[in-house]
Amino acid sequence: MDERLILVTNDDGYASKGIGAAIAVARRFGRVVVVAPETAQSGMSQAITMYRPLFLRRIPAGEGVEMYAFSGTPVDCVKVAFDHLLRDRRVDLVLSGVNHGSNSAVNVLYSGTMGAAIEGSFYGCPSIGLSLADHGADADFEAAELYAERIVRAVLERPVGESLCLNVNIPVGRPEEIRGVRVCRQNLGYWREEFYRREDPQGREYFWLTGDFVDREPEAPDTDERALAEGYVSVVPVQVDLTDYARMDSLRATLGLE
Amino acid sequence: MDERLILVTNDDGYASKGIGAAIAVARRFGRVVVVAPETAQSGMSQAITMYRPLFLRRIPAGEGVEMYAFSGTPVDCVKVAFDHLLRDRRVDLVLSGVNHGSNSAVNVLYSGTMGAAIEGSFYGCPSIGLSLADHGADADFEAAELYAERIVRAVLERPVGESLCLNVNIPVGRPEEIRGVRVCRQNLGYWREEFYRREDPQGREYFWLTGDFVDREPEAPDTDERALAEGYVSVVPVQVDLTDYARMDSLRATLGLE
Repeated sequence: MDERLILVTNDDGYASKGIGAAIAVARRFGRVVVVAPETAQSGMSQAITMYRPLFLRRIPAGEGVEMYAFSGTPVDCVKVAFDHLLRDRRVDLVLSGVNHGSNSAVNVLYSGTMGAAIEGSFYGCPSIGLSLADHGADADFEAAELYAERIVRAVLERPVGESLCLNVNIPVGRPEEIRGVRVCRQNLGYWREEFYRREDPQGREYFWLTGDFVDREPEAPDTDERALAEGYVSVVPVQVDLTDYARMDSLRATLGLE
Repeated sequence: MDERLILVTNDDGYASKGIGAAIAVARRFGRVVVVAPETAQSGMSQAITMYRPLFLRRIPAGEGVEMYAFSGTPVDCVKVAFDHLLRDRRVDLVLSGVNHGSNSAVNVLYSGTMGAAIEGSFYGCPSIGLSLADHGADADFEAAELYAERIVRAVLERPVGESLCLNVNIPVGRPEEIRGVRVCRQNLGYWREEFYRREDPQGREYFWLTGDFVDREPEAPDTDERALAEGYVSVVPVQVDLTDYARMDSLRATLGLE
């Protein structure tokens, strides 16, 4: 059997600590190609770069790892990997992360980590976004690596069906403190922002985004937020048909179509 | 009754022709506040700006219209509108567009127009993304205005339920050539990219994103792509729970959880 090929990307940039954890996990299962952003791209969602050219730069890396920094978004990285670098090669898995900070709940929509994972699934490749609930640049990824390895092994060695995309979040804690893995649904909370307002050196007012997550359903037992709060690794299977089927009939009535 | 208040935004920037069409439609229903990007933000998806401060600039506008350019993404514009400018005011509707170019099918995920509309729905406000299937800077928005007005009237004057978000695409054509409105589901096609590869003046290779949409289900009668191809305005109700419920049980089995 040919050796497996795993594409690793992230949104914190090729030099982040977290991508090292993803590469270490991927390396246990085969050859690794890394295509990650040159610079931090948190919050870039599914964004693509349309208005400027992008540069791809080879970065020295260890045995079995081929690494590139790309000057675009996480989704740009996945596209240049599949449509250029790996065009004629079979990719067995896309790993995006490990993100510094959780991407549970509605963060799946804003997250560059998950943008890249979703993009990977568009290429027909099982794709896993990995996020650790710790924003620190020097966060401890030991538990994240352990659980990522278990999940990657299951996905690579068992049947998973077409276009699998997983949003995996790991709570903060030592491996022995984590209670296990739970398959969950996406929590339906949202963000309320408080823009910092200050003046720049020229006296112009500026705004800087910050905010708080509002959990609309803290009592729900089956959400990713709840799993994390209870010390479990949350795994949400992700799909990308945003159609609100339940609303189609009432919408036809609203629009006077029947 | 208080006059209605409508927030208008887009992803092509405050100076685009298409936003003029959205403002004209909105003005027929009440007062209008426009918060739109300073610069073109196509393909920015649900992206937010985390790493730099943003500037808000008042732009002179006509009677009943209060207009601002914001130096961030479409989603940033919606956030600064709801969380700062309009914090204590009731917003009746968010209109995002009219985009120069269609946002049917999976483009709902990449589109800054739809990113802003989805964000509007997070604030509990009915939100409509409007896109015309013509990328030209000088596209003809007459039919788009006509159909946008009909849809806005229906949404404002009839019950629509909570968190309504619509992805509306208008085909190219004179008003009399358009065959009507169809409520559809999102087509499940995807993009395959062909990066332009050239050398810059210093001899460095660069990549520039381009690509072709691949319709995976051209025979399906109920998709937005099909409606547009047949000359109908497509309306897809959008929701943002990406959980793939149909896959939860098999995923538990894959992960050895039961």
